[in-house]
Amino acid sequence: MSDSNPILLAYSGGLDTSFCIPWLKAQYDRPVITVTVDTGGIDGDTAKALESRALQLGAMEHHQIDARADFFNNVLRYLIAGNVKRGQSYPLCVGAERGVQAATMARIAVETSASAIAHGCTAAGNDQVRFEVALAALAPDIEVIAPVRDNSWAREDQIAFLKERNLPLPTSGGAYSINRGLWGVTIGGKETLTSVGSIPEDAWVLSPGVLQKPNPPESLTIDFVGGAPVAVNGQTADPVSLIENLESIGARHAIGRGIHVGDTILGTKGRVAFEAPAAELLITAHRELEKLTLSAAQQRVKDQVSAIYGDLVHEAGQLDPACRDIEALMLSAQAYVTGTVRLALQAGIAFVEGVDAPRSLLAASKGVYGEAAGEWTPRDALGFSRVRALPGILQARAGAQN
Amino acid sequence: MSDSNPILLAYSGGLDTSFCIPWLKAQYDRPVITVTVDTGGIDGDTAKALESRALQLGAMEHHQIDARADFFNNVLRYLIAGNVKRGQSYPLCVGAERGVQAATMARIAVETSASAIAHGCTAAGNDQVRFEVALAALAPDIEVIAPVRDNSWAREDQIAFLKERNLPLPTSGGAYSINRGLWGVTIGGKETLTSVGSIPEDAWVLSPGVLQKPNPPESLTIDFVGGAPVAVNGQTADPVSLIENLESIGARHAIGRGIHVGDTILGTKGRVAFEAPAAELLITAHRELEKLTLSAAQQRVKDQVSAIYGDLVHEAGQLDPACRDIEALMLSAQAYVTGTVRLALQAGIAFVEGVDAPRSLLAASKGVYGEAAGEWTPRDALGFSRVRALPGILQARAGAQN
Amino acid sequence: MSDSNPILLAYSGGLDTSFCIPWLKAQYDRPVITVTVDTGGIDGDTAKALESRALQLGAMEHHQIDARADFFNNVLRYLIAGNVKRGQSYPLCVGAERGVQAATMARIAVETSASAIAHGCTAAGNDQVRFEVALAALAPDIEVIAPVRDNSWAREDQIAFLKERNLPLPTSGGAYSINRGLWGVTIGGKETLTSVGSIPEDAWVLSPGVLQKPNPPESLTIDFVGGAPVAVNGQTADPVSLIENLESIGARHAIGRGIHVGDTILGTKGRVAFEAPAAELLITAHRELEKLTLSAAQQRVKDQVSAIYGDLVHEAGQLDPACRDIEALMLSAQAYVTGTVRLALQAGIAFVEGVDAPRSLLAASKGVYGEAAGEWTPRDALGFSRVRALPGILQARAGAQN
Amino acid sequence: MSDSNPILLAYSGGLDTSFCIPWLKAQYDRPVITVTVDTGGIDGDTAKALESRALQLGAMEHHQIDARADFFNNVLRYLIAGNVKRGQSYPLCVGAERGVQAATMARIAVETSASAIAHGCTAAGNDQVRFEVALAALAPDIEVIAPVRDNSWAREDQIAFLKERNLPLPTSGGAYSINRGLWGVTIGGKETLTSVGSIPEDAWVLSPGVLQKPNPPESLTIDFVGGAPVAVNGQTADPVSLIENLESIGARHAIGRGIHVGDTILGTKGRVAFEAPAAELLITAHRELEKLTLSAAQQRVKDQVSAIYGDLVHEAGQLDPACRDIEALMLSAQAYVTGTVRLALQAGIAFVEGVDAPRSLLAASKGVYGEAAGEWTPRDALGFSRVRALPGILQARAGAQN
Repeated sequence: MSDSNPILLAYSGGLDTSFCIPWLKAQYDRPVITVTVDTGGIDGDTAKALESRALQLGAMEHHQIDARADFFNNVLRYLIAGNVKRGQSYPLCVGAERGVQAATMARIAVETSASAIAHGCTAAGNDQVRFEVALAALAPDIEVIAPVRDNSWAREDQIAFLKERNLPLPTSGGAYSINRGLWGVTIGGKETLTSVGSIPEDAWVLSPGVLQKPNPPESLTIDFVGGAPVAVNGQTADPVSLIENLESIGARHAIGRGIHVGDTILGTKGRVAFEAPAAELLITAHRELEKLTLSAAQQRVKDQVSAIYGDLVHEAGQLDPACRDIEALMLSAQAYVTGTVRLALQAGIAFVEGVDAPRSLLAASKGVYGEAAGEWTPRDALGFSRVRALPGILQARAGAQN
Repeated sequence: MSDSNPILLAYSGGLDTSFCIPWLKAQYDRPVITVTVDTGGIDGDTAKALESRALQLGAMEHHQIDARADFFNNVLRYLIAGNVKRGQSYPLCVGAERGVQAATMARIAVETSASAIAHGCTAAGNDQVRFEVALAALAPDIEVIAPVRDNSWAREDQIAFLKERNLPLPTSGGAYSINRGLWGVTIGGKETLTSVGSIPEDAWVLSPGVLQKPNPPESLTIDFVGGAPVAVNGQTADPVSLIENLESIGARHAIGRGIHVGDTILGTKGRVAFEAPAAELLITAHRELEKLTLSAAQQRVKDQVSAIYGDLVHEAGQLDPACRDIEALMLSAQAYVTGTVRLALQAGIAFVEGVDAPRSLLAASKGVYGEAAGEWTPRDALGFSRVRALPGILQARAGAQN
Repeated sequence: MSDSNPILLAYSGGLDTSFCIPWLKAQYDRPVITVTVDTGGIDGDTAKALESRALQLGAMEHHQIDARADFFNNVLRYLIAGNVKRGQSYPLCVGAERGVQAATMARIAVETSASAIAHGCTAAGNDQVRFEVALAALAPDIEVIAPVRDNSWAREDQIAFLKERNLPLPTSGGAYSINRGLWGVTIGGKETLTSVGSIPEDAWVLSPGVLQKPNPPESLTIDFVGGAPVAVNGQTADPVSLIENLESIGARHAIGRGIHVGDTILGTKGRVAFEAPAAELLITAHRELEKLTLSAAQQRVKDQVSAIYGDLVHEAGQLDPACRDIEALMLSAQAYVTGTVRLALQAGIAFVEGVDAPRSLLAASKGVYGEAAGEWTPRDALGFSRVRALPGILQARAGAQN
Repeated sequence: MSDSNPILLAYSGGLDTSFCIPWLKAQYDRPVITVTVDTGGIDGDTAKALESRALQLGAMEHHQIDARADFFNNVLRYLIAGNVKRGQSYPLCVGAERGVQAATMARIAVETSASAIAHGCTAAGNDQVRFEVALAALAPDIEVIAPVRDNSWAREDQIAFLKERNLPLPTSGGAYSINRGLWGVTIGGKETLTSVGSIPEDAWVLSPGVLQKPNPPESLTIDFVGGAPVAVNGQTADPVSLIENLESIGARHAIGRGIHVGDTILGTKGRVAFEAPAAELLITAHRELEKLTLSAAQQRVKDQVSAIYGDLVHEAGQLDPACRDIEALMLSAQAYVTGTVRLALQAGIAFVEGVDAPRSLLAASKGVYGEAAGEWTPRDALGFSRVRALPGILQARAGAQN
């Protein structure tokens, strides 16, 4: 307890982490360094506001770390390769970034000689588990502090605590708790606490009102090389810029909205609204390009392990070596996932019109589907059908034996 | 060959099967009985036209068999239970109905003392395999004849054959080959022969022009009991009527359109456009109801075997007892999939706004997701996180040993 | 705390649970009722000794509940149906019985108006989790007490506690901790605490010395009906007697020995020696009978879900409805798993010599494997091979395009 | 037909391929070059006898190609990494080598300007499919000839054909058809044509009589680096020599015998006896080493895809890129599968006594399994158990709502 090293606080600017700054200082009598790990969704103004508020609240230093490229290279690249959507709808907007954030915090802790890392997670959600599992592996000697969870600080009491000390309150997020990152936005609160209703139109962050006043339809092409996106509408870009660009384009048409009831790491059910235009466009386009370039067996195998990968990422298992193994499979499968996907966008719709790929297995076939045989003769097809019928014949005969 | 028993012909009214009537009569000198197994998409006028054309072409008798309820009970019920979409997009519009058609043909063959069954499939597609595999198991003693495949009859030659004999030509399906059934419409031809383009707007069968002139948004509820749909907008209906009703509703908003590149049973790639409004609405709604009522493990297990089920159905494996086994699992899992799903429909969009279920696992939790712990304390959550961290700690330590 | 209802203690007769009797009485000032749930391995003398020691140690009442038939019907039947061995070797000797024990404890608690259930598990193993997870679901209103875990009672201190009070010490299990039940014996201690060595020959419980002095070889037949064993060497028996008989027979030849390094529910590794003659014989025989009577697809699907089933049973998930779903699949698959398996037994070896089954799919085939074609012609086989070659041809051509 | 290029014949020395030499020459009037692709099991004397018989039968040239190292590097390495046994018993002794043989034939065909490749497979088995699928992909322009299959040559007629021409008959393999390679021996005939009996003791090729007259027990160690075997009893060796050595050692104790009923590629059932001492020893040892060094999730994922890999290898799918993808996963998972496994061998028994590994996850744990908690406290374990109980609590409560 005589430790006077700084406490590193993962800082989002919300009430929980804002409250933590003065509380940690008071409770531990140690300096607090705030760190915002940027995994997307933070523009210049927001960054400045975060820093100034952190310092006002008493942080000794504030760091903003751009982890967006890491986020893409270590996680998103594989979520695209695996076409990962939880429950066939939710593209892991939040879960995927926590691992990167924890890894970054662990690195900064070592660099700043911090001996403790604090986070603002509550006892109810997934994020506490993701942070603590990652930090225990990456920074086993560093203490982890979770003031809000471990002291059950209620929202009202946090506000009172800040007011008493004349400290600035975070701008209210309104009725909803919002998490924004490179892979989308999640919106929780009110309606999402039960299952029966949707959030109101103006609660959507990226596309409020778009469905009521649609923008004109537009055409979009996405180019992939080796399973990774490299260009949008013919313009090459680094993955981070490309994803941010796709978010803007998709948001104009309210692409990628949904409300998902999911299984938390704790074993309860949770519900959340999300807007993930870039994830939706990329996964939709990538999936169709794969249909043209992967064998049937490749798709089957990859689908199986990708579902597991999504579960591991969601459930704080991103550091398990099983993820490295699955990533190796995915990379192998992506070798020829190269080509151009053309989509037609219109309010709420991302329709894949066509795909072109140098290693198209459709183009490689001389046979014309449904019309005439190519490499094989009618007699071959008959023989194939007859042999394929054998298991059923055996079953029928075995049944008749008795 | 001195057999004078009738040949039973699976008759769709298209060129291939129309050609088969006179050709079979001429070739085999045996009467031809045409059978149209209705698995959806045939209204009264169409049925009459089918019969009259079959007789004109020389059929001794024509039978139309309503197999829609069988189709639902034996296949569609499970495709819904498994949320089955091939390649995450195509709801098996065609493949699913062939097994039911073959089974019906086998039954009628016995009833009519037919000693041969003919089908009009070509050597290039999946349907020949589906028919022959099913017939070999269900009617092992009945000969199967595939005139178009085995003699490689080209379209032009079929037309010439009919013209020479002054026989009626089927009304041209235009440039596209269309298959319509209870689970949707498939559209193949021209653009679908390569991968790069979509079919033109007016080639869509159920919803041409809808995206250009959207109908007003509407609200929709679907009630499920034990995983099967029982009511639409509060009106109970038998499954067949309910699905036909949902097709009309969904088609008004062009729900369920897509173009899919798939893997044929033969191992080639094929591409097809499809419109499946009812399948899209039912699977989307059902999936969200399951998220509320199934455990995480149930969903995971069912997803795995449902993908296999879809493959088996697509690939002529519907009679494999493995399908019965998977169906048993699915039925067990559907026991509590009961509730009401509310969707907001708008051109191209089926958005699930909310779900209500008597066995809601979300409602069963006292904890409020993301906000406060319910059945468990912060200390429990900490303990859980620490134990969950153990594998990563061991990995890190094992790595450091070296 | 003014509660004077009895505490129900799950009693095995070992040091941990023996210590708990006087400690609970002293600590809570409430009567203690001991319950031994017999899931196998307890003969009449042992049962009497257990009761007398429990009463000597201060139990108000002692109950022994025969749960062996339940154990078979609810768990073992499915472990056989799934051929479940963890890590391809360990037949879940221990994990499987805990769920049945917890369920029985919950039932007795209600019948005896107990308001608390105590168990003797430590903080290090799987059993604490299995007990607490099951009890929370089955007896949510009953308090669960874990004196040894929660107070970290060391072995020496427990002994001292008993000696101070002149209470009987359990007969020392020697250096090893032994768990014996219907599905086998586990042996832990000394050598199993690290990975490098085996336990000494005389530490094996069922078959010490057998490999050094083998018994004469013998022949064995096991009959199954619908996947469940019904007779041994032609003598029908109820499942429990049959398994006990097979344990005696197999133990004569040291069948089913192993040492397994497994993954605990907590995420650590643990190592344990086991002797499971009956499990080994039944699973080996059943698996070979299935090869004769199930389709390839049935085996594949069942293998997948059986592995998950084994994990769920091991990891305290036996009450998850996913287990019910998998059981439904298993039962469906077992419908025709009926027949007789003949094994040759010799020290350490259970060799399946042959299998006979009324629904043999081998017998149903006219073709003779490897020698001549049966239902199909050489031309059919050629056609089949050519069509099966298509994916590879497309891959080669797609590669050559570039 | 005016082609005068040589025909390349895959030559095993058995009746089918011996017959093919003169028949092909006569039928096609082209020279025949025989090729024996050695994937194990051919010693110097056998090689000489093969060459001399081929030339006597009229071959223009005979080539023996040592493909054993290729076989290990391309296939066996992964069968070990995946612990692949079909039906939990059969280590793919035969199926695995056909792909390597076909690839070698394709290469030699190009080198010798052959324009046709002939094989001696019948219409009844798997090998025709394996050869033709591989050759179609690897040598698409080369004709494939299967005289025995396509002309249904019976054994007696082949013998008559050779006798008429005074050509040498192959030494009779007796009543059984034997295939011997690096990964084991398969034995088919008589008893294996039905399911009820085993082959007689003297029909075993590697270990006849061993179980009746056991050799003295011996100890064995196998060292692995990165999942591949590198030393036996401390002596490093290349993989091929090492496997041949393990075959000798294992055969002394009749390790790895079995009789397997399997599913053929054609969809029928087939039965075969096998002796695979090296495969059994390597897979058993490797599997236990993995339990010590892989995470639970790694094992689960690898088990799933390894089963698929085994199916693909067995079913002529070895060239499908899905195999490359799975191999990438396997290699990733093998990174730390390094250590020493000690086995005790005795007639019919390969018992793993212990495993030592530098990256042992058992050693990495401070906690002692079953005895005391290590990295976690009793309170953590309680918290973990309580959270793990949540799904069951929710289920119970949801059930009680109704």
